[in-house]
Amino acid sequence: MTKVNDNFLKLQKSYLFVAIAQKVKAFKEANPSAKVISLGIGDVTQPLAPAVIEAMHKAVDEMTDTKTFRGYGPEHGYAFLQDAIIANDFKPRGIELTRDEIFVNDGAKSDTGNIGDILGKDNTICVTDPIYPVYIDSNVMSGRAGEIVNGLWSNVSYMPCNAENNFTPEIPDHKTDIIYLCYPNNPTGTVITRERLAEWVEYALRHNSIIMYDAAYEAYIQDETIPHSIYEIEGAKKCAIEFHSYSKTAGFTGVRCGYTVVPKELKAIAADGSEVELNGLWERRQSTKFNGTSYITQRGAEAIYTPEGKKQVKATIDYYMANAKTMRQTLTGLGLKVFGGENAPYIWFKTPGGMSSWEMFDKMLNEAHLVCTPGVGFGPSGEGYIRLTAFGQHEDCLEAMERIKKIIKL
Amino acid sequence: MTKVNDNFLKLQKSYLFVAIAQKVKAFKEANPSAKVISLGIGDVTQPLAPAVIEAMHKAVDEMTDTKTFRGYGPEHGYAFLQDAIIANDFKPRGIELTRDEIFVNDGAKSDTGNIGDILGKDNTICVTDPIYPVYIDSNVMSGRAGEIVNGLWSNVSYMPCNAENNFTPEIPDHKTDIIYLCYPNNPTGTVITRERLAEWVEYALRHNSIIMYDAAYEAYIQDETIPHSIYEIEGAKKCAIEFHSYSKTAGFTGVRCGYTVVPKELKAIAADGSEVELNGLWERRQSTKFNGTSYITQRGAEAIYTPEGKKQVKATIDYYMANAKTMRQTLTGLGLKVFGGENAPYIWFKTPGGMSSWEMFDKMLNEAHLVCTPGVGFGPSGEGYIRLTAFGQHEDCLEAMERIKKIIKL
Repeated sequence: MTKVNDNFLKLQKSYLFVAIAQKVKAFKEANPSAKVISLGIGDVTQPLAPAVIEAMHKAVDEMTDTKTFRGYGPEHGYAFLQDAIIANDFKPRGIELTRDEIFVNDGAKSDTGNIGDILGKDNTICVTDPIYPVYIDSNVMSGRAGEIVNGLWSNVSYMPCNAENNFTPEIPDHKTDIIYLCYPNNPTGTVITRERLAEWVEYALRHNSIIMYDAAYEAYIQDETIPHSIYEIEGAKKCAIEFHSYSKTAGFTGVRCGYTVVPKELKAIAADGSEVELNGLWERRQSTKFNGTSYITQRGAEAIYTPEGKKQVKATIDYYMANAKTMRQTLTGLGLKVFGGENAPYIWFKTPGGMSSWEMFDKMLNEAHLVCTPGVGFGPSGEGYIRLTAFGQHEDCLEAMERIKKIIKL
Repeated sequence: MTKVNDNFLKLQKSYLFVAIAQKVKAFKEANPSAKVISLGIGDVTQPLAPAVIEAMHKAVDEMTDTKTFRGYGPEHGYAFLQDAIIANDFKPRGIELTRDEIFVNDGAKSDTGNIGDILGKDNTICVTDPIYPVYIDSNVMSGRAGEIVNGLWSNVSYMPCNAENNFTPEIPDHKTDIIYLCYPNNPTGTVITRERLAEWVEYALRHNSIIMYDAAYEAYIQDETIPHSIYEIEGAKKCAIEFHSYSKTAGFTGVRCGYTVVPKELKAIAADGSEVELNGLWERRQSTKFNGTSYITQRGAEAIYTPEGKKQVKATIDYYMANAKTMRQTLTGLGLKVFGGENAPYIWFKTPGGMSSWEMFDKMLNEAHLVCTPGVGFGPSGEGYIRLTAFGQHEDCLEAMERIKKIIKL
């Protein structure tokens, strides 16, 4: 009989957000009149920028005429979008990249999951904990995470981030091959300083490790001293792959577009000891198993970089960051220990009275009809924390804070 | 140092269509005034159906208002599209499927490549030869194809399709686990009868094998006795995954949408001997490594199934099939042995005078300024054949046939 990939059977029963959705569905069925407000899954709520809408209408119209019709595009994206990315996201920060180092995709989730295809199964992994579940789950699926022992994967080094170390993970004292970093961080909303990021780059260069740098939330950085790209650090092109997404930058969660940077300088080692450029392997992976992102979507993404697009996108980010400020102030005022929300759309707080994450989740759902994300769903160091997102309507955010005030009495 | 996936290094130097593109680029640079006509890569040229255009404009407009804005969609597609698929592609053929058996994606290439993620590395593979390169290349990348020996992969059984057996591959006389079938066939343009397909299903059920059935070209079937879906054969739900694409059905090569059917009845075996539903594994794979297809795209795909959409899409298919007829007649008239083109947009012909595929490719490019696809690029049994596609403008097709008449004298 055909055999399954047994690694899949090692995965925990269900993906975090699916588990939450099931709980919420059950609550709504039992309480059909309750007005549930979601501060849980990180989905945006505000309309697309008018510049993006206009560009997509134009692209749709191009598909009506043989002269302007577009069929298969280049697997790794149209030059017009690659050029806009280089000119706007990198050049102003002193980073030089070429078109063939930019791989346009259908969102960061695909590439952060698929990137493991090009790396050997016997590499070890290092993650900050708590963490976005896809990094580990995709490694479990490929067999690279090892076996689960007391809730932890045997080939994964977990670097705890918590209130005690001010969410600054230790740099490992041992060699690891693949390091996942996400800054501004999902789920904690915390950031990394240039100095600390330089220490990670120095570690990776010393051990010939590769950093998978998820910069999906860089557009939310308000503090000018915080790096937007790992390539702002000297030497990072030799040790890092960087993932960007328009999902949160420009409300593209339903439109699906992002990009991955794989610098030409980045190398890993083959079984025969020779060094191999990862850019070429990723290009081969994408041209074999991906057929490019929708032309219409790529024109929409290009419009984000126009003067009007930039202004409109910034206004939406400001709107969400106003939510974050309201939430921070309310929760801090209640005496809770609150993190994030200053350079990121996520608020991370310690549950009161030593409650577990899921206990607090249930309390918020049942007593305040609020959906949050239990911190423990992001890893063991998330236990006792809750993640809230700032992506809601402002009125909902205000209403949610009023409800929280009623149920939390410290 | 971080290790690469060495399986990637076993791949042949470059993907077929990339190799062709490089040759064409060099020719155009050397002959800037030549009017090159491509009958090579299978990309469509006709505009999208007006119903699709209208639906996509409407969907773009929905993104301008918080009340109608759509963020993350379900990873495996919106119910409106799944319902349209079930009602139109399956129910009229007597096939019952449920929504959770339909996985909407960004095109068949992604899923035919990624499907191997959920299966064990030690399964054996069977392909018809010649074949669409992605099936084998994606298995090489995961290590499942084995080692290359005299141009063939050690864990792959090749079932030759050629003029001698009328492009009807033998059913293997030994057990194989994963079987790739594509009908109407890319590259040969030939089809499979219901009786022959039933024999493959019987083989798969007997050996507990899984058939990966690529139905990307089913919309081109003209002969009513030819099956559009493998599920028209009794028992196929227990042994087959089916891939559909809107790329050729509705000109979506630049829009990116298709779907995969993984029936609930389909099972494979775990290391402990238990049977596992593949539907659940694929759902987990997709919810971890994919974030759904663009909402705008899915609304466009839904419109294909409206009465106007169906009529418009059929008109375009008729247009391409008129090209196919012209090509068949011309080439047959020249005394060439011609296959396909009756229920498929591909024409497959034997090169004259025993030329190799690449020799004929060079002759057509240099003497007639025509781009074709060398049959050998699809596998060893494709040597001595050429693939032409019917996706061009009709005038280009006529012009191309005039040019071919001049260079082929048998």
